[in-house]
Amino acid sequence: MSKGHLVVPKGADSEALPLSVLILNRGDGPRLLITAGCHGNELEGPIVARRLLDWLPQAQECGTVIIAPALNPPALEASSRNSPVDGLNLNRVFPGRADGSLSERIADAVSRVLLPMADTVFDLHGFGPGWECAPASTTHPIADADLMRKTLRMAEAFKLPVTLVWEGPDTGGMFDTLAQSQGKVFVCAELGSGTIGADALMIAETGVRNALIALGIVKGRAQHPAFRQQKSSLTLETRLSDWLNSPAHGIFEPRCSVLDKVKQGDLIGILHPWDLWLSNPVDIRARTTSIVCGVRSGGPVEINKEVALVARLLNT
Amino acid sequence: MSKGHLVVPKGADSEALPLSVLILNRGDGPRLLITAGCHGNELEGPIVARRLLDWLPQAQECGTVIIAPALNPPALEASSRNSPVDGLNLNRVFPGRADGSLSERIADAVSRVLLPMADTVFDLHGFGPGWECAPASTTHPIADADLMRKTLRMAEAFKLPVTLVWEGPDTGGMFDTLAQSQGKVFVCAELGSGTIGADALMIAETGVRNALIALGIVKGRAQHPAFRQQKSSLTLETRLSDWLNSPAHGIFEPRCSVLDKVKQGDLIGILHPWDLWLSNPVDIRARTTSIVCGVRSGGPVEINKEVALVARLLNT
Repeated sequence: MSKGHLVVPKGADSEALPLSVLILNRGDGPRLLITAGCHGNELEGPIVARRLLDWLPQAQECGTVIIAPALNPPALEASSRNSPVDGLNLNRVFPGRADGSLSERIADAVSRVLLPMADTVFDLHGFGPGWECAPASTTHPIADADLMRKTLRMAEAFKLPVTLVWEGPDTGGMFDTLAQSQGKVFVCAELGSGTIGADALMIAETGVRNALIALGIVKGRAQHPAFRQQKSSLTLETRLSDWLNSPAHGIFEPRCSVLDKVKQGDLIGILHPWDLWLSNPVDIRARTTSIVCGVRSGGPVEINKEVALVARLLNT
Repeated sequence: MSKGHLVVPKGADSEALPLSVLILNRGDGPRLLITAGCHGNELEGPIVARRLLDWLPQAQECGTVIIAPALNPPALEASSRNSPVDGLNLNRVFPGRADGSLSERIADAVSRVLLPMADTVFDLHGFGPGWECAPASTTHPIADADLMRKTLRMAEAFKLPVTLVWEGPDTGGMFDTLAQSQGKVFVCAELGSGTIGADALMIAETGVRNALIALGIVKGRAQHPAFRQQKSSLTLETRLSDWLNSPAHGIFEPRCSVLDKVKQGDLIGILHPWDLWLSNPVDIRARTTSIVCGVRSGGPVEINKEVALVARLLNT
C-alpha cells in the first residue's frame, strides 16, 4: 500500500494543490480507479472511499486499486458543487488543460496521470442535498454497444437498490465520456441524497464491496443491502423528458416517495403559493406509468426547476 | 373559517408585511394557536400547517384554531434560519418591539395579537438540514411544576417517536418562555431533519392530528405513526452536557443512527482530517449509557461544533 499525493501544479489562481492518492497493488488483475469528492457537497463518496482503507488492504486478492478520495479539495472545504476558486463544475471540464484554471488543472492531472493507470473507473457521487433518491449505480447511454453492455453489467454488480441508465444533457466535459472514449468501463455511483447517515453509508460501502467482488479483486459473497426493508435491485432508464418541473415559484410539497410505482394522473407533489392560503396550490401529476427515481425535498423551488425524476424498467 | 392577514407594520427596514392567518371557530372549547415557519430553513411546519386546511374545517368539533403557517416570510424565501432583513433569529427576540427591526416587529405582532387568542400553542419547527433526528414533540424544562406536567402530557399526546424535555441554553427571547410566563401550554414540535419527504410529512401530520384529538378539537383515534418500522414513542430528557462535539475541523462520519442505544465507549462517529489519509482520524465515543437523539449528517464540521445529541429516558 502506498499513500501519496498527485500534485496539481500551481497556476494563476492558486498554489500547487496536493490530491491524496492511495495505491493498493497486488500483482496482475483488474486495474481499478476509484474517485470521489468531485462535487464538494456530495460527501458520501469521500467517506466511503476512506472506509475502504479499513479492510481492502487485507482483503485484496489481486490487481491494482487506485483511490483518490477527494478530487476537489477547495469545493469540499466550501461544501459547494462548483469550485470556489474558478466557479467551474469539475465534471464539466474534462480532459482539462495544463495551463487552465484550477478545476481544469485538476481534470488534466487526473486525465493524464490517474486515468491511464486503470481499465475500470468507479466515480463516487451523491445526488446532493435537497433530494430524496435511492442509492444507485448509474451510466449514461453509450453508443458503443459492447462497452454499454459491459458497463451495465458492472453497474448492476453493485447490487444497489437502483441501477440507472439515464439520458443526461449533452453538456460535454464529463469524466465518464472521456474514460469511455478510451474504452474504459466507467460507473458513476450516486450513493445518496439529503442527510448522510450511518445506514446510507453502509449501503454505499456494501455496493462498492459487491463491485470489487464482481471484479475478482476481493473474495466474498455479494449482498443486496437493505433499503427501506427491501433487499432488491431494479434496473431503470430515464429520458430527459422524464423530469417533472415546477409550474411556478413557490413551496414544493412531495406527495410520493422514492421507488413508488405511479400511473398517469397520480399525485407526485403539490406546488403551493408563498402565502400558503390565498391562492390555489397546483398539483403535479405523473404523465405515464413509471417508478419514482428521485423527488425533491419539501421546500422553496423556482419556476421550471426539477421536482421529480421518474423512470421505467430498462428493456434489455 | 376566515382567512386573512396579520399585518406587521412597516418600519425603517421594510414595508408592511402581511402574515397569512386562518381562524377556524367552532364555539366553546380549547383555544389553540398553531405557528410555523419561524425559521426559514425548516419547511416541515409550514407544509404540515397547510395540510390541516384539507381536513380540519370539516373535522373540527369545537373550540378555536388559529393557524399562522409562515411567521417569517423573508427567511422562508431565503431558506435561512435567521431573517435576511435584520440578521436576527425570530425565536430569540420575543416579545419583540413595535418600533424594532422586522423580526422584532413580527414577534411583537404575534405576541400582542395572536398569542392572547390562545391557551395552547403548537410551534412547528424542524431540526433543520444537516442533521438526522427523530420527529419529536419537545419542551424545555419549566419551573412551574403544574405547567410542566400539563405541557409534558400535551407533548406526549402527539405520539411522535420521541417526546423530549431538553435543557436549552439560556438565551432569552424565545417564544415558548413568553407563552409559559402567561401560563399557556406550549409544545415545540421538531418535525424532521434533512430531506423533507412524503413519509416524514405524514408522520408530522399524524402527530398534530393526535394532539388535536387529545384536546378534543377533533374526534378520532390517535395513532402512533410508523418511524423506521417502529410504532412507539419514547419520552427522553437531555442536558446541555449531552451534546457531543467535534474534536477538530474536518469531515464527520456518522457511525450511529437515531434511536440507537449506546453504552460508554460505543462509537458515535469519526472525525477525519481533510486529506482523508495522511493523519489519523479521531473516534468520537459515547460517554454514558444513552439513546441517540440526533446525529449530524456526514460532512465538513468545524472544531467544537455539535455532532450528536444523546438522551436518557425521562424519570417521571
